[in-house]
Amino acid sequence: MSTPRTKEIIAAAAKLFKAKGYHATTIQDVADEVGMLKGSLYYHIKSKEELLYLVTKEPIRELIERQKKLMESDWSPQQKILEFIRLHLRAFDENYPHMFVFLQEKASLSEPVQAEVAGIHFRYEALLEAILHQGVDGGHFRRELDLKMMAFSILGMCNWMFKWYSKGGRLTIEEIGHHMAEIILNGITTRIL
Amino acid sequence: MSTPRTKEIIAAAAKLFKAKGYHATTIQDVADEVGMLKGSLYYHIKSKEELLYLVTKEPIRELIERQKKLMESDWSPQQKILEFIRLHLRAFDENYPHMFVFLQEKASLSEPVQAEVAGIHFRYEALLEAILHQGVDGGHFRRELDLKMMAFSILGMCNWMFKWYSKGGRLTIEEIGHHMAEIILNGITTRIL
Repeated sequence: MSTPRTKEIIAAAAKLFKAKGYHATTIQDVADEVGMLKGSLYYHIKSKEELLYLVTKEPIRELIERQKKLMESDWSPQQKILEFIRLHLRAFDENYPHMFVFLQEKASLSEPVQAEVAGIHFRYEALLEAILHQGVDGGHFRRELDLKMMAFSILGMCNWMFKWYSKGGRLTIEEIGHHMAEIILNGITTRIL
Repeated sequence: MSTPRTKEIIAAAAKLFKAKGYHATTIQDVADEVGMLKGSLYYHIKSKEELLYLVTKEPIRELIERQKKLMESDWSPQQKILEFIRLHLRAFDENYPHMFVFLQEKASLSEPVQAEVAGIHFRYEALLEAILHQGVDGGHFRRELDLKMMAFSILGMCNWMFKWYSKGGRLTIEEIGHHMAEIILNGITTRIL
């Protein structure tokens, strides 16, 4: 998996997915980009789905690393939630559009890869839940709300973006993150304090 | 589209999708259920994707009808948001799992059907935005939040459920709706009033 040749193929695929989009990119395009025959390319990778997984693997690993540091930091739980959402959205924005395609297409990955992806998702959710837990324990977040529902609501809000987001739209990714964090932390109802 | 025979096929497909799931159901199963040859069935419907669309069309139409009445009612904007989320989740629950599959698969529908679906989604979003607008105008909802972001956050939270929901799980659909509405309306932060 980690031969120099495979790395080169992954880098070429990432570049093409970014420029042309995942669906418009063919295995032939990737082969052309690295100057290989299509048949030889299949010696290194099994399918376009596998390439999608490999291309998104490193950004996801980095994202988890950052969220882990955030979880362990001494920031307030509110700051952590805002930053969690921002890091999540930024990773998707930087790896647009293949990170979004990955969310949509992961069901078509092969069984062993799907199991690995499920493990990654589990770890990621656990980090978010740990932050929420810190917030509930410290009296910052509402104890009466279900922790899993809070986590799923945050992830749903962020991940659903792949249905409507287009880079360079009306709002920047920072503004979207700010609005989402505000809704999650404080809700949409006006407060008269 | 609306011959008695087509209606019978749609009803059979709905029954099978519910019992076996969409992916496990074959066109042959549908043909067997209505006592037709597979070839004759293709005279009435073009593909399994089209059947999925036809099966979900009526529940979606009914859901829009209900949300429209809700929007026009004299309930408070907060009550409307709670009820909007409940109606949305209940429609998905009652038509589980094909409504979820529809969300996942709608990209594979034919172009003219996709355009129709886009129109339905647009109308649905507009109803939610109208409720949010009433809330902002009446001073119930925070004016500084972007209206589209509020709408997308609510829909994202609800629709992402198709990734984790399983009927008969730990929380009922009513409890899930309650938690989501609470998070949207009041946020996760503790209030000291």
